[in-house]
Amino acid sequence: MKLNIALLAGDGIGPEVIDQAVKVCDVVATKFNHEITWKPALTGAAAIDAVGEPYPDETHEICKNSDAVLFGAIGHPRFDNDPSAKVRPEQGLLKMRKALGLFANVRPTFTFPSLLEKSPLKRERIEGTDLVFLRELTGGIYFGEKGRRDGGETAFDNCVYTREEVQRLAKKGFELAMTRSKKLCCVDKANVLETSRLWRETVQAMEKDYPEVEVSYEFVDAVAMRLVQWPNSYDVLITENLFGDILTDEASVISGSMGLMPSASLGSDIGLFEPIHGSYPQATGKNIANPMATVLSAAMMFENFGLQEEGKAIREAVNKALNEGVVTEDLAEGGKAYGTSEVGDWLAANV
Amino acid sequence: MKLNIALLAGDGIGPEVIDQAVKVCDVVATKFNHEITWKPALTGAAAIDAVGEPYPDETHEICKNSDAVLFGAIGHPRFDNDPSAKVRPEQGLLKMRKALGLFANVRPTFTFPSLLEKSPLKRERIEGTDLVFLRELTGGIYFGEKGRRDGGETAFDNCVYTREEVQRLAKKGFELAMTRSKKLCCVDKANVLETSRLWRETVQAMEKDYPEVEVSYEFVDAVAMRLVQWPNSYDVLITENLFGDILTDEASVISGSMGLMPSASLGSDIGLFEPIHGSYPQATGKNIANPMATVLSAAMMFENFGLQEEGKAIREAVNKALNEGVVTEDLAEGGKAYGTSEVGDWLAANV
Ligand SMILES: CC(C)[C@H](C(=O)O)[C@@H](O)C(=O)O
Ligand SMILES: CC(C)[C@H](C(=O)O)[C@@H](O)C(=O)O
Repeated sequence: MKLNIALLAGDGIGPEVIDQAVKVCDVVATKFNHEITWKPALTGAAAIDAVGEPYPDETHEICKNSDAVLFGAIGHPRFDNDPSAKVRPEQGLLKMRKALGLFANVRPTFTFPSLLEKSPLKRERIEGTDLVFLRELTGGIYFGEKGRRDGGETAFDNCVYTREEVQRLAKKGFELAMTRSKKLCCVDKANVLETSRLWRETVQAMEKDYPEVEVSYEFVDAVAMRLVQWPNSYDVLITENLFGDILTDEASVISGSMGLMPSASLGSDIGLFEPIHGSYPQATGKNIANPMATVLSAAMMFENFGLQEEGKAIREAVNKALNEGVVTEDLAEGGKAYGTSEVGDWLAANV
Repeated sequence: MKLNIALLAGDGIGPEVIDQAVKVCDVVATKFNHEITWKPALTGAAAIDAVGEPYPDETHEICKNSDAVLFGAIGHPRFDNDPSAKVRPEQGLLKMRKALGLFANVRPTFTFPSLLEKSPLKRERIEGTDLVFLRELTGGIYFGEKGRRDGGETAFDNCVYTREEVQRLAKKGFELAMTRSKKLCCVDKANVLETSRLWRETVQAMEKDYPEVEVSYEFVDAVAMRLVQWPNSYDVLITENLFGDILTDEASVISGSMGLMPSASLGSDIGLFEPIHGSYPQATGKNIANPMATVLSAAMMFENFGLQEEGKAIREAVNKALNEGVVTEDLAEGGKAYGTSEVGDWLAANV
């Protein structure tokens, strides 16, 4: 297969972890007879510094003309405590999601047996956890009208959903549930929000098309609790944009392996693959960031092209590295800590 | 002191746990020479069944003419899976919060040494946790304009905040921080939402009035993570209505003692005091619900009247019951489980 992959390294540790994923993908491509052409492009604070915009048109052109996007991380602390900043790295991310039609964010949370002790949760709570969130990514309060009134004294953000937006996301949820244990949980706040009532009634109406899927409906506050209490009671969860933002981050830490969690954003033909961790500014340039989440995101990318074997080869290399202790300091537990690039080299050599 | 207390037992286990709090308060009143007049009133599904409305005018009259409201729980499953229900118990709760001006929901999360093992979190993560959320309770997306367009195909919920709404909540947060460890965390999503940017800039502008308080700003998704990772790194947190709904519930389970967590809603002269747990329909009428959260809510009520000794007497009785194993089945751990009313009797006798 010939693959054109847009490479958006972004900010902070983004470039370092992306470099490792490229190394690993290049070896996989050689082994399986694919040809990857990497198309680097600017995004995030890096793009603001270079051209004054977090998702420049040139970057969009490159993404649009690629088969997929491999993404590092964006965000820089100098923007976070300045509520009046006019241009923010995050705007680039949102613009990109919208422009590429990436309405479904797929975020798995699973455990690695060798890492169970890293979880803040007790072993019996976390063991066997293997859940996937499908977060709606291009609607809701993120993209509704927002602004100020009364000379800046009143602020508003509008949350809007159409039935169609709910349907296309829920469809992916039902389909995913069919390939797994046929359990789907719709997360909303239907006791308060009208948008949530639209979500619930839309999903209820779809149940008849998937008679084998057992659907449950839970309030977002209840899910925030049960994720900590019994994460392994969940399988596939679907939810709107803001709830998904909060809950997927919550879910990501319960496994204790946040540095290992990949994600995919799908919708149009072009998927975007990125680690769920952020730009981790404190670690930037120190060769200590864990590249495994990005490498596993590349595995999701191959799998999304239908290249299951390629994905599996990467996953097995990561498992082997974990078992043999070839890990960065976040997972070293007093043992030897390898550098970001050493872990990347090892994975490339063992894939 | 002469105290008129509106008694809103509500749904599910509400009436059972409220009964125990009344018993305990009556003994405290006798011991400390107070005179409590209880004014029972309808709310929730119980009120819908009786008079067709979840927060009837008569109930509001009673609350308005009382010194405080002691509240059980509301909610009934028959409303939850019916997105088209016209009247819902929750509307009563929201109407009451607004009508009584209860803009600040105070929700502590703390640990009981004897219950540390009940937490889903490992001991070293949870030990020493003692945090308080101040959740804004009468604004935001809960109360903004909501509805449908396009013949029902599009739904919207508007989130609105004024600077003044943020200021009065933040003021309570700063004041609370001054009585504790002088650390305040403002939780928002300022990288995406305009209302959050208003929150952040308003709190930033207030910092100079409280030079001793160390203020931090964190995104809601990051807090959802850190609450599970290092809950004991937080002290006082302030946040808007919906974020508060999700995060306070998440926080409530990390201690492992959800059946023990009280709350207060303050704003006008009349405070409302309630357990944070819900109406727990499965347990209704079985005399198994844990009354301690409601009893501790009554302690918060006394303390809010400036009656510190009375509050302390209740807290000490609860601690003693926990140490001596006088607990309901949720905390019994294979030991003897007492009934709801037996725990209430014991507390009343030991206060
Ligand atoms: C950076 C931010 C805008 C973004 C979001 O809120 O969607 C991030 O938290 C995420 O989850 O990808
Ligand atoms: C019942 C519901 C409307 C309510 C809320 O969302 O505020 C509840 O979850 C709470 O936190 O008190």
